[in-house]
Amino acid sequence: MPRRNAFYAQSGGPTAVINASACGVLQSARQHSEHINKVYAGRNGIIGALTEDLIDTSIESDAAIAALKHTPGAAFGSCRYKLASIDEHRAQYERLIEVFRAHDIGFFFYNGGGDSQDTAYKVSQIGAVLDYPIVCVGIPKTIDNDLPITDCSPGFGSAAKYLATSIRETAFDLSSVSRTSTKVFALEVMGRHAGWMTAACALAAEHEGDAPHVLLLPEIAFDEGRFLARVEQAVKQYGHCVIAVSEGIKGPDGEFLSAGLKDAFGHAQLGGVAPIITDLIGKKLGHKFHWAVADYLQRSARHIASETDVQQAYAVGRAAVEFAISGKNAVMPAIRRLSDSPYRWDIIEAPLSEVANREKTLPPEFISADGFAVTAAARRYLAPLIAGEAYPPFKDGLPDYVRLQNVATPKKLVKKFAV
Amino acid sequence: MPRRNAFYAQSGGPTAVINASACGVLQSARQHSEHINKVYAGRNGIIGALTEDLIDTSIESDAAIAALKHTPGAAFGSCRYKLASIDEHRAQYERLIEVFRAHDIGFFFYNGGGDSQDTAYKVSQIGAVLDYPIVCVGIPKTIDNDLPITDCSPGFGSAAKYLATSIRETAFDLSSVSRTSTKVFALEVMGRHAGWMTAACALAAEHEGDAPHVLLLPEIAFDEGRFLARVEQAVKQYGHCVIAVSEGIKGPDGEFLSAGLKDAFGHAQLGGVAPIITDLIGKKLGHKFHWAVADYLQRSARHIASETDVQQAYAVGRAAVEFAISGKNAVMPAIRRLSDSPYRWDIIEAPLSEVANREKTLPPEFISADGFAVTAAARRYLAPLIAGEAYPPFKDGLPDYVRLQNVATPKKLVKKFAV
Repeated sequence: MPRRNAFYAQSGGPTAVINASACGVLQSARQHSEHINKVYAGRNGIIGALTEDLIDTSIESDAAIAALKHTPGAAFGSCRYKLASIDEHRAQYERLIEVFRAHDIGFFFYNGGGDSQDTAYKVSQIGAVLDYPIVCVGIPKTIDNDLPITDCSPGFGSAAKYLATSIRETAFDLSSVSRTSTKVFALEVMGRHAGWMTAACALAAEHEGDAPHVLLLPEIAFDEGRFLARVEQAVKQYGHCVIAVSEGIKGPDGEFLSAGLKDAFGHAQLGGVAPIITDLIGKKLGHKFHWAVADYLQRSARHIASETDVQQAYAVGRAAVEFAISGKNAVMPAIRRLSDSPYRWDIIEAPLSEVANREKTLPPEFISADGFAVTAAARRYLAPLIAGEAYPPFKDGLPDYVRLQNVATPKKLVKKFAV
Repeated sequence: MPRRNAFYAQSGGPTAVINASACGVLQSARQHSEHINKVYAGRNGIIGALTEDLIDTSIESDAAIAALKHTPGAAFGSCRYKLASIDEHRAQYERLIEVFRAHDIGFFFYNGGGDSQDTAYKVSQIGAVLDYPIVCVGIPKTIDNDLPITDCSPGFGSAAKYLATSIRETAFDLSSVSRTSTKVFALEVMGRHAGWMTAACALAAEHEGDAPHVLLLPEIAFDEGRFLARVEQAVKQYGHCVIAVSEGIKGPDGEFLSAGLKDAFGHAQLGGVAPIITDLIGKKLGHKFHWAVADYLQRSARHIASETDVQQAYAVGRAAVEFAISGKNAVMPAIRRLSDSPYRWDIIEAPLSEVANREKTLPPEFISADGFAVTAAARRYLAPLIAGEAYPPFKDGLPDYVRLQNVATPKKLVKKFAV
């Protein structure tokens, strides 16, 4: 196989560990220089390819690349930009091929969630349809943990660890003030249609009666009466009640309790449901309440990352390069669980055709009969994913994260492309 | 001086390190058993004294007491309960004396913020006014950092480190998605009337242009036009804008932008201003935005505590016991800064009469001319307070915090007291 350049890009919402995957890709590519010459990173995901804004990663030092492993955010910029199908928007794909050809790009790595795997899958088809030879490998990433096939999605374990830690800490706080002050606390959790992140909050509880006392999962329709009864029961029994509420919970009518604008993928932008449900508690039950919305904090909290998650994010990055140089097209490295405890896993190939646009929500056997908690099976699944600490270095009291130079390679095309 | 028992209680909102002060008190008391027999902890602050609900700390192991140093919340329960003056409610003080006399309590330690130091000060007067010999020492604690005399308030440094870390991490996230998605992010910060916590967010910035780009401090009246202009400027210049907004900002009319219920101290319960100001940005500037309200997470985040803060919280606990056994009544150990860099400090006595009910807000020389940032002097003041990491032990991926047994000593009084 001739030595060619590679394209790598990050897509969708960043995580605390997506750059660990970038680190895996770049370190592995440097070690396989007989197959891969330069790795160009797309500035802001696929937009970087369409606009020929290709960051030359070869000028970054080995130390800077290594530091990606402990740096949150998306080091090369991300995007929410959905490619149409080849039939619908052939010009986009022709443009991609122009750029790839101009820069001799033979490998395409796309690091993201379900929508991004869809993009990777579409690009993987251009070899056959438009006769441009390219090997496309998707790299999994999403805090939502909703990718199919893979045991978990890199990014999820760290967000889960942040959330379970926050619930545990807040519960120590709340339980000590509930005698004369706040009795109910709700933390709003991301995760869209999937309750994985909210389920992970349950790990905060060590003993019967520990927080969280109520989970509101998007898989279960919100029932005001049953919810209020459950909160009241917890307040009576424990003196306080901690709630983890999914941003994506829906009422019996199937409508989001909180929904605002739509993003570029056409998804509703969620957020703000914690104040809505605590307000309800205040009005109907009369308890003093507090609420928190962690929002981006939960997906960027690299300071409390899961070591398991960092290792897996790095491993799928490395595996993607190994798959690519073996000529495996249209696949995604997926994590396969071999055992729960001790947690053992390896990496397998998942066909992009089976990954793209499929959402894996919490299975029924992970949700308790009353819908407000998770089962022992869910805890067995979740527990290893938050295991281990992987602290970043600190400087002057704060995490010392790297900013790359992100210098673009000179453009070779005259034509511009508007995105 | 005869050997007597001590009373220790925690008051107001907990912090990540108030239990480190408890650890200092209890360890020091155990080492001074020639002066102090048992330490009884009030369950839920002063309420425990009034209701004779006295936790016998002597049954807790040395290991459990040591673990308080890394455990958030208020281990013995806290309260928001304000004592009236002796003239107004003599029965409260007579009840305190009954309880103290029944349990031979000669030392009174009260760990809290401004309101709590007021309580400690009132109790310190009962020796003279009601002829009951007791030595009262206040122990400083508040994330708000608004206590006078002391260089800083234990609890502040850890909350500040949490906030600055969160701002830095979120900025890495936001700056990587702002090309096609969110351009403005606002984090709501506690601190009531004082902007110390919001000011501490500024430590997240290392270089010109780094987040946070706009601080909204409660010391500066909110001016919608100037604020929007500043946000727009940041979006133009950096592509995105990160805002740290104090829960207690007020409009030109002096009213809180966000205010709900009042707490037991008669203070407005604040919260929810981040969605208000970002909504304004969405409507007036048209930028996509996200917001977070960290709420209790910021005061309980022991996992990212400042080592300096933990040391100081522990030191004021120890010093309180040393002051008490020296017979120093109506004082509070205060931190005195000896130098900024290296940060050197020692502990001095502050008279409770000068501490109680005085709020120290950000001085004008710490606020930039435009009111949206802090000065170099503020950064010199703030920087050492977040220095050093003091990670708790972890077990199964989560911080391993201690729950004490909290067994009450048998009541000796027949009469009950309603609070």
